[in-house]
Amino acid sequence: MTKAQKPSILLTGFAPFGGESINPSWQAVSVLEGEHIGGCIIHTKELSCEFDTSLRELHQAIDKYAPQLVLCVGQAGGRADISIERVAINVNDARIADNAGKQPIDTQVIAGAPSAYFTNLSIKRILMALQQAELPASISNSAGTYVCNHVMYGLMHMINQHDTHIKGGFIHIPYLPSQALHHPNAPSMSLDMVLSALKVIITSAIQNKDDIKVAAGTTH
Amino acid sequence: MTKAQKPSILLTGFAPFGGESINPSWQAVSVLEGEHIGGCIIHTKELSCEFDTSLRELHQAIDKYAPQLVLCVGQAGGRADISIERVAINVNDARIADNAGKQPIDTQVIAGAPSAYFTNLSIKRILMALQQAELPASISNSAGTYVCNHVMYGLMHMINQHDTHIKGGFIHIPYLPSQALHHPNAPSMSLDMVLSALKVIITSAIQNKDDIKVAAGTTH
Amino acid sequence: MTKAQKPSILLTGFAPFGGESINPSWQAVSVLEGEHIGGCIIHTKELSCEFDTSLRELHQAIDKYAPQLVLCVGQAGGRADISIERVAINVNDARIADNAGKQPIDTQVIAGAPSAYFTNLSIKRILMALQQAELPASISNSAGTYVCNHVMYGLMHMINQHDTHIKGGFIHIPYLPSQALHHPNAPSMSLDMVLSALKVIITSAIQNKDDIKVAAGTTH
Amino acid sequence: MTKAQKPSILLTGFAPFGGESINPSWQAVSVLEGEHIGGCIIHTKELSCEFDTSLRELHQAIDKYAPQLVLCVGQAGGRADISIERVAINVNDARIADNAGKQPIDTQVIAGAPSAYFTNLSIKRILMALQQAELPASISNSAGTYVCNHVMYGLMHMINQHDTHIKGGFIHIPYLPSQALHHPNAPSMSLDMVLSALKVIITSAIQNKDDIKVAAGTTH
Repeated sequence: MTKAQKPSILLTGFAPFGGESINPSWQAVSVLEGEHIGGCIIHTKELSCEFDTSLRELHQAIDKYAPQLVLCVGQAGGRADISIERVAINVNDARIADNAGKQPIDTQVIAGAPSAYFTNLSIKRILMALQQAELPASISNSAGTYVCNHVMYGLMHMINQHDTHIKGGFIHIPYLPSQALHHPNAPSMSLDMVLSALKVIITSAIQNKDDIKVAAGTTH
Repeated sequence: MTKAQKPSILLTGFAPFGGESINPSWQAVSVLEGEHIGGCIIHTKELSCEFDTSLRELHQAIDKYAPQLVLCVGQAGGRADISIERVAINVNDARIADNAGKQPIDTQVIAGAPSAYFTNLSIKRILMALQQAELPASISNSAGTYVCNHVMYGLMHMINQHDTHIKGGFIHIPYLPSQALHHPNAPSMSLDMVLSALKVIITSAIQNKDDIKVAAGTTH
Repeated sequence: MTKAQKPSILLTGFAPFGGESINPSWQAVSVLEGEHIGGCIIHTKELSCEFDTSLRELHQAIDKYAPQLVLCVGQAGGRADISIERVAINVNDARIADNAGKQPIDTQVIAGAPSAYFTNLSIKRILMALQQAELPASISNSAGTYVCNHVMYGLMHMINQHDTHIKGGFIHIPYLPSQALHHPNAPSMSLDMVLSALKVIITSAIQNKDDIKVAAGTTH
Repeated sequence: MTKAQKPSILLTGFAPFGGESINPSWQAVSVLEGEHIGGCIIHTKELSCEFDTSLRELHQAIDKYAPQLVLCVGQAGGRADISIERVAINVNDARIADNAGKQPIDTQVIAGAPSAYFTNLSIKRILMALQQAELPASISNSAGTYVCNHVMYGLMHMINQHDTHIKGGFIHIPYLPSQALHHPNAPSMSLDMVLSALKVIITSAIQNKDDIKVAAGTTH
């Protein structure tokens, strides 16, 4: 297969971390392997919940599939809706060790690189599309300082430095109901709803239209 | 139809209130009209979100259907899981006016009646059944002081005074996703999950077994 | 000292529980030992965080001080304001073992006694007084199912059965700031504010006026 | 007075916004006018809650006082603790209009400038100092997309471009108790605690030591 042969999309999820036995991101993403949306084929990849290793895996998958869209998905336990990340920052500050036992504190994701990268997805269009589908969603202005932010930053760095034709972004999803059983009062979202949301996001993202001006910020 | 003709279940939901255009309780309950669970037929009734009127409607429906189980369902916007109410108190204290414009403050649901009634459902069995089905749930120790508590209290009063063979209880459910669009950060639960939960609850309740001792309390 | 000698108030707090090294209720209550409010002297007592034992200690203190007002105070970690409990229910359902290792599940506080007792304080007056003093407060409709509810139920049972001249109630307070250090994102309230609140509550309660009709309920 | 005459600190708060009658940031900051901490005199300035205007006011105050430390403080209604902002992003996305009626959506704070700036304060030292003083605090990775982020971004841009000797940062504080009266269940912090926190922060910041490696990140 030559890289240009067929338009493709790369979806990534993460391995479980922090004591969980599953990660809802991979539970959802893996279901979409081989599906077609808007004339594109979806390839999926489970990333390790490890600093650096996750980025190497991501880069290998991008080399392999030459996607026009890369959407990384991660678990945000405690959030109630689909959150579309706006920005990744050049910081690793791990509250807990990653799955390899590493706990970087206040290091840079990529030494000497910019302080932050914005996603180049049209996030307000995606937000509107989700809301029209009655799927609760919001724009998030922080992907944290753990492996999720690390991967988003690394992805957007690569896109900005080398692969400016790729569209890239990061989506945080709530716990699955089976996880919420063990987290009293925690919101959750059914796998069906998450899958619906991912399809809506991909459909919007590959249309590749300029974004619209719709207020979706936060006062703090 | 004679009352003893056929074992039946009465499910009630509420009309929308508080500015909402739908009430998830009636959205869910109405779907189950005419369904059979465990050899019983399900009858449904939408109750007005009004003090007193709601109770008259409930009593009429009980007279009509002679159910062995009455399960009233209400919206608890902001809660993340299925909550099984343990107790109803003899107080009306309306934070907002009901749909008839009445706003009773610190009146009794039924003058001179006991301070509270407990549900006679085996709530810990129901909780376990929901959790085994991977449906997030908890025991709630307050149904509030609005029409939901009012209806639960009135139901349990009737059962305790006259109809001790009836099993009765109250279930609070989260917003539907379509409602959460308008309530930033609010948890929601899909209609499918709510329906699954109601079926699990009914299946457990009609088995009519003594409850089990499983801790599910709160420290405050 | 004869019982009638001097009008007195009994304030109780609890011993630490659940892994905490302090209990904000006793931290606050103990400061008020011997103070005078409205011509009454304040006596204080630290109750064990144990089922049954706590109630025996409470009864002994009431026998000793013959108070006209008994205000029991407890910790509600996670709540953001001063909450004035409206009602106690006749249930013990311990999520965690008490300090004596006992974990009653779905037992009664007092066998054969009523399902619930309401406080006989004028809780809406107290609420208004707190708000006028710019102290965040609310009415709570559940004191939980642990030792706090147990003590409130036992207190109101005694008052209703034997000591109808005594005014009694229960106040839940947030974590102290020093506790919130160990509970990320948990609200807290400074000791100064808690003390101010307790003085406002006592001042209102000993005026012994009929309550006012102000909506302060919840929809669920 | 010549600029170099005396080491000084500039503290800013904001005017009320979003329907509030006060802004806790200015309530607190204004109390510290003229105080001395660590040999420095504190100057204070109330900034308009307006895009652009706020930054002009900030720059004028910096020109006037030539501070070695600039600490901007803002209200974060709903947060429970003192939050030390790590980063400001080059985005204005106003959920509500500012006090001048402007509502920029997805514009840049400063056209063509970097995506983000980090504070140059030693935020982990500040965090440790607050916690040692039993003042609940955390590191925040988003100052939002409203006037607070706008001011922090503009401050750090100026520092990075021209005034690299100045230390600058942003602190978000909770509602005051008087505000929480109107926001049910919202956390609040007393003015005394906020003032204590600001003094601790200033004392730590002017020591101007390299930061320490203490994990204080978030997984999302």
